[in-house]
Amino acid sequence: MDVNPSVITVITFDDTHCNISHIDEPSAEAIKGITWINVEGLQDVVLINKLAKRFSIHPLTVEDIVKPDQRPKVEEYECYIFFTIKLLEWDKIKSVLVIQQVSIIFGKDFILSFHESPTTVFEPIRAKLNNIGPQGLRQRSTDYLAYRLIDVIVDDYFDVLESLGEGIENMEDRIIASPSPKNARIIYRIKRQMLLVRKAVWPVREAISHLLYEENTLVSPFTRVYLRDVYDHIMQSMDTIETYRDMLASILDMYLSGLTIRMNEIVKTLTIITTIFIPITALAGIYGMNLPDIPFMKSRWGFVFVASVMIGGIIGMILYFRKKKWI
Amino acid sequence: MDVNPSVITVITFDDTHCNISHIDEPSAEAIKGITWINVEGLQDVVLINKLAKRFSIHPLTVEDIVKPDQRPKVEEYECYIFFTIKLLEWDKIKSVLVIQQVSIIFGKDFILSFHESPTTVFEPIRAKLNNIGPQGLRQRSTDYLAYRLIDVIVDDYFDVLESLGEGIENMEDRIIASPSPKNARIIYRIKRQMLLVRKAVWPVREAISHLLYEENTLVSPFTRVYLRDVYDHIMQSMDTIETYRDMLASILDMYLSGLTIRMNEIVKTLTIITTIFIPITALAGIYGMNLPDIPFMKSRWGFVFVASVMIGGIIGMILYFRKKKWI
Amino acid sequence: MDVNPSVITVITFDDTHCNISHIDEPSAEAIKGITWINVEGLQDVVLINKLAKRFSIHPLTVEDIVKPDQRPKVEEYECYIFFTIKLLEWDKIKSVLVIQQVSIIFGKDFILSFHESPTTVFEPIRAKLNNIGPQGLRQRSTDYLAYRLIDVIVDDYFDVLESLGEGIENMEDRIIASPSPKNARIIYRIKRQMLLVRKAVWPVREAISHLLYEENTLVSPFTRVYLRDVYDHIMQSMDTIETYRDMLASILDMYLSGLTIRMNEIVKTLTIITTIFIPITALAGIYGMNLPDIPFMKSRWGFVFVASVMIGGIIGMILYFRKKKWI
Amino acid sequence: MDVNPSVITVITFDDTHCNISHIDEPSAEAIKGITWINVEGLQDVVLINKLAKRFSIHPLTVEDIVKPDQRPKVEEYECYIFFTIKLLEWDKIKSVLVIQQVSIIFGKDFILSFHESPTTVFEPIRAKLNNIGPQGLRQRSTDYLAYRLIDVIVDDYFDVLESLGEGIENMEDRIIASPSPKNARIIYRIKRQMLLVRKAVWPVREAISHLLYEENTLVSPFTRVYLRDVYDHIMQSMDTIETYRDMLASILDMYLSGLTIRMNEIVKTLTIITTIFIPITALAGIYGMNLPDIPFMKSRWGFVFVASVMIGGIIGMILYFRKKKWI
Amino acid sequence: MDVNPSVITVITFDDTHCNISHIDEPSAEAIKGITWINVEGLQDVVLINKLAKRFSIHPLTVEDIVKPDQRPKVEEYECYIFFTIKLLEWDKIKSVLVIQQVSIIFGKDFILSFHESPTTVFEPIRAKLNNIGPQGLRQRSTDYLAYRLIDVIVDDYFDVLESLGEGIENMEDRIIASPSPKNARIIYRIKRQMLLVRKAVWPVREAISHLLYEENTLVSPFTRVYLRDVYDHIMQSMDTIETYRDMLASILDMYLSGLTIRMNEIVKTLTIITTIFIPITALAGIYGMNLPDIPFMKSRWGFVFVASVMIGGIIGMILYFRKKKWI
Repeated sequence: MDVNPSVITVITFDDTHCNISHIDEPSAEAIKGITWINVEGLQDVVLINKLAKRFSIHPLTVEDIVKPDQRPKVEEYECYIFFTIKLLEWDKIKSVLVIQQVSIIFGKDFILSFHESPTTVFEPIRAKLNNIGPQGLRQRSTDYLAYRLIDVIVDDYFDVLESLGEGIENMEDRIIASPSPKNARIIYRIKRQMLLVRKAVWPVREAISHLLYEENTLVSPFTRVYLRDVYDHIMQSMDTIETYRDMLASILDMYLSGLTIRMNEIVKTLTIITTIFIPITALAGIYGMNLPDIPFMKSRWGFVFVASVMIGGIIGMILYFRKKKWI
Repeated sequence: MDVNPSVITVITFDDTHCNISHIDEPSAEAIKGITWINVEGLQDVVLINKLAKRFSIHPLTVEDIVKPDQRPKVEEYECYIFFTIKLLEWDKIKSVLVIQQVSIIFGKDFILSFHESPTTVFEPIRAKLNNIGPQGLRQRSTDYLAYRLIDVIVDDYFDVLESLGEGIENMEDRIIASPSPKNARIIYRIKRQMLLVRKAVWPVREAISHLLYEENTLVSPFTRVYLRDVYDHIMQSMDTIETYRDMLASILDMYLSGLTIRMNEIVKTLTIITTIFIPITALAGIYGMNLPDIPFMKSRWGFVFVASVMIGGIIGMILYFRKKKWI
Repeated sequence: MDVNPSVITVITFDDTHCNISHIDEPSAEAIKGITWINVEGLQDVVLINKLAKRFSIHPLTVEDIVKPDQRPKVEEYECYIFFTIKLLEWDKIKSVLVIQQVSIIFGKDFILSFHESPTTVFEPIRAKLNNIGPQGLRQRSTDYLAYRLIDVIVDDYFDVLESLGEGIENMEDRIIASPSPKNARIIYRIKRQMLLVRKAVWPVREAISHLLYEENTLVSPFTRVYLRDVYDHIMQSMDTIETYRDMLASILDMYLSGLTIRMNEIVKTLTIITTIFIPITALAGIYGMNLPDIPFMKSRWGFVFVASVMIGGIIGMILYFRKKKWI
Repeated sequence: MDVNPSVITVITFDDTHCNISHIDEPSAEAIKGITWINVEGLQDVVLINKLAKRFSIHPLTVEDIVKPDQRPKVEEYECYIFFTIKLLEWDKIKSVLVIQQVSIIFGKDFILSFHESPTTVFEPIRAKLNNIGPQGLRQRSTDYLAYRLIDVIVDDYFDVLESLGEGIENMEDRIIASPSPKNARIIYRIKRQMLLVRKAVWPVREAISHLLYEENTLVSPFTRVYLRDVYDHIMQSMDTIETYRDMLASILDMYLSGLTIRMNEIVKTLTIITTIFIPITALAGIYGMNLPDIPFMKSRWGFVFVASVMIGGIIGMILYFRKKKWI
Repeated sequence: MDVNPSVITVITFDDTHCNISHIDEPSAEAIKGITWINVEGLQDVVLINKLAKRFSIHPLTVEDIVKPDQRPKVEEYECYIFFTIKLLEWDKIKSVLVIQQVSIIFGKDFILSFHESPTTVFEPIRAKLNNIGPQGLRQRSTDYLAYRLIDVIVDDYFDVLESLGEGIENMEDRIIASPSPKNARIIYRIKRQMLLVRKAVWPVREAISHLLYEENTLVSPFTRVYLRDVYDHIMQSMDTIETYRDMLASILDMYLSGLTIRMNEIVKTLTIITTIFIPITALAGIYGMNLPDIPFMKSRWGFVFVASVMIGGIIGMILYFRKKKWI
């Protein structure tokens, strides 16, 4: 097989026990308690289909899981809820936004999660499930665990937004100092990443709202209180994104006006130099003509007179520019 | 008759059989199973009217079918549902968007589809219906077949958007390299095609939503699950269109600021050359005056002095420009 | 009386007969069948009040009829429905948009229509009513006739939009060829007419929607099917208007960037000429100084040397401009 | 007391009588028929509190009446309805928009109106109430009178909008003729007044809509028909405001492009003059060099040759500019 | 412990008594009447958790209280309502907007408020509670007290908006006088603060609306009347913010057009000087050529002729510029 093999992590737990194992293929045997199967790598379609068959997943759901560009959404089926969302991670080394799709399916006693590339975002939850001693998370049903998965993903949005926000603040200071096209390009890149974040975050609002307000036996009132919290986080992210968009627009305005200010400066220099020296050149040209009888030409004080006129002109011009506040 | 003759393809099928034939005129005899009649070429109004009579189609529906500029919509009549949608195809050779209207009518045991120009978009469905052996599509009712027709059309939207998206990415790189009016024109052309795509896609959302949520005996719950999927695809297309619009706006901003930057460069060159040579010309003019007693004029070191002043001025100016980061 | 006299056309019809007459004053006698009274010219308020009394029209309705700047709307009264809409006509000779208000009132057995200026828009309907032989339109009730009146008015919107669209297409080509202020002014005129069309069309949507969905004994289900069609036409007009607005915005963007490009060209010419000739002038000035001992001055090859430097400078500059892609 | 004393006008009326008096303090005695008390000047809080106590007005209502910057709104209390709205008046002498708040309270048999500054807007209503003979307005209940007060205020909006519209039309012509900053400033002033009008008009829509559609025993069906008319007027005002905003945006675009066109013109002049004379100067400079053996220098036809080259250059340049359509 | 210690103010009151004390830790003993506990400083999480346990506060609520960047919202729990809002204060000395989060929890007989930094905004309420004698505020239930806390916070929004509005008015005048980048920077700073205010105010609308319209036994009808007032204040703030945003956009437009006008001025000066002196220089250059037989060269009137041409040219140019309204 040419495709990258999938990594399957199976966690079975109840109040008192938790068992983590890595398998190659889902087994059909029934297990006491709740099973959480995480699949990393979505290219092995055969395997995913087997898994889908085992848990009676609708073909449309399978299609949505393996296509990496779904719109975040929630879909209710007879015996499970399908939730797909984007995981945003900020690659601090490359200053690049990494987006991948996470699909979560939860039924009465199972929860499946799918994503393409390795990520550490679910580690804390696994660690918590595995902790010795009586503990909250193991006593909860699958909907609460699904909430936890969604919650850690949504929490990552804030990290990404913070990184973008820092980038914006940096650029704001730099663009004032020098409105160079290089800086403009960086701003456009941030703007574009912001578009991607917005495209990923916006539909989540609707999906969470659906989970919150639609009647469904799979989502308990206990979990709904927590989902309300996730909903608030999404709203807060959206507010932040809108504020950042406005800030980016302001920065670009400043950049454009910075370019015009710079042009003004350059043209001002040109005008000042030209305006001072062109009349001098003209006057010098006049006294350079091969004509008889130019006034003062033969006079001993000719040069003094001409030089005085020139210096007077320079001083006059400088005073004029001062008055106009150009220099 | 001057009009182009229509090409009529009749497919009759039930669980076990499928028959494809090309006819000139619809016959009135009853057929066991489901009949799918596809009409290519909408100029032969007489024929379409006959067909409409055969299946009791409302005159308003006929009018909507033959007028090529309908807004995508769904309309329920007593014994059929009328759905009209735009088929978008990207002509890769001419880099041109081709839009035509497809009208779909489905009743209890018949489905009619109409379009003006030849297209291969329905071929896979015909092939699937014609396949030997028991097979899903032949067992479904007309609403599922209608869903399949709509589905392949909506799937084409992604192809078109991808082609436009590639065009945008290309232009983004090129416009940075050279903000020429030619490139700007290409961007405006993409923007305009995007407007057409948006105009075609946006109303489909409402039409699908109507099919999904309005009570109707013709649309089975089984098919509704699939229509929900089409609805998601439309939403995803809209998201992509919005993102592209924002990206196009950014590119045009970059183009405009690129023009100003270019202007700055040109004016900077002018200013530097002028500022360096105008004072030299003025000084040379002064020593070219036919006046007695200009200082240094008679001196052996006169030229050395003047040349030093000139070279000093040039160096001073260059240092000044350096400081201003102009060169 | 100083006001222009109104022209009153009375059409009474039932299944079999149709009678058209022009009268000066409405008579109070009862008529078998349906009466359609069309009033052209709204300045004779006395007459309109008489008519209103005859058909028990509310004073507010009369006020709305005679004031020419109503917002399109529908209002239900106890025994009639009042509908007011803008008739848009494109004066092809003057290339000007002509807007007038048409008010339609229909009750159980009468329909009144009012407009200020002569128009031929209702002619086809009158012709159809007057046709000999059994015929559909005469068998319908007043609500269907009202639909027909509204329908021909809304159909005219497409003509106007097409004319504006042609104007936009023309300008698009022309503005690329020459970004002159004259062309810009034409675009702003089109934009303004588009604003007026939008103001006239937009509220009609709501009015038709009201007729469609509000319960009312005067509007039969038969007619509602047709009104749905009018509603679609309005939506299509709105889509077209929005697309045109976006296109106009693009054209204006192109115009503005065209101005900057033109400026770039002009400044480029200035820079090239200046940059080539200013150093030559400076060099010539140096050799024009009345100083002893300028190098090469006395030499036989002096001119050849100076000319070589000048020509070398010119060639150098041209190569530099080539490299910068300025020429 | 330092505050300006309030002017209180009390009108009591029933079908047959109407009595207008100016008093200093509200009396507690019961009056047959309906009482309309108008208070001009809101600084005498003591008096207003007395009045409020007499008619059992809630403290929050009193607070809203005396604070001059309320948002237009309607509030229902147990035994009265409180309506607050902005009165817009156009001061034709100063070309300035005057805004003041009018508060209207109506119960079963009383109506109170409050405003700060003198206004003649209610005069026609007072006149109508006072007319001898049986007359409509005196037979109506308080809700109809309240409608009349609101109606005259809303009708004034059209006057203000018309004045602003005239200002816009004027500026449109002027800004084309001369894109001066002075004219721009006038446009910005109009734009700002438009903002204020919009802020005042927009919330009224909601308030009227509340009166229209909320169940309330104080507002009779008879009056609701008339309120629907006021609602239409508000919608029409909003449409007009939006159209004006778009027109102002267009004018400002024209102004900005006008500035660029002007710059183009100026730079074009500079370029033409420079391009014609700089080469002449350079050539003249060359023949002014003190070098032996410059070609044609000693020739009798030297000047003719040089002059020909110069004139040829000038003609060439002019032809070039013609071709470029610069002159 | 490294964290700043919290300052806890406990107020217990009923109709007749009021007791204010500062404690270190909440006691568990029951108190007659209503208890209002205000916590200033949110870093001592241990203490807040104790408090939460004492009043049975949900862990999610505690989390929201100690995280300082919540979105304003209201959340209902079984036996309390949680309300979080931003307190905006304008630091007049630094001209800086200070934002902190205030969380309010109210149950049947307790009210808790939390904020990070010291503020005097609740002082008047404490003073009122502590006043001797029978008094309204002490007779109300917790929901009314919560309303009072929200009310004083919302009232502060107007102060902040007024300060920003003053800043805008100032800048409007200044930017016309001198479109300097420094002034632009101030405008961008105001714009940014406006964004923050908007982000803080906008969600409050929804929260108050929830309190107003959702059924809840904790919020009495008496208090709802007052909450409607707060709601109006929020709407009014939003209107003001939108108006300010439009004004800021206008000012920035004026700034940008001011830059272009300035450029026009500078380039005009350059063009005038160049256009006047370049032809003079050229003519002088011609008469400076070392060629025999230049016309007028030997003539006594040569200089007079040349000078006349020069002066004529200057006058001609000046007249031309006058005509063009450049000078």
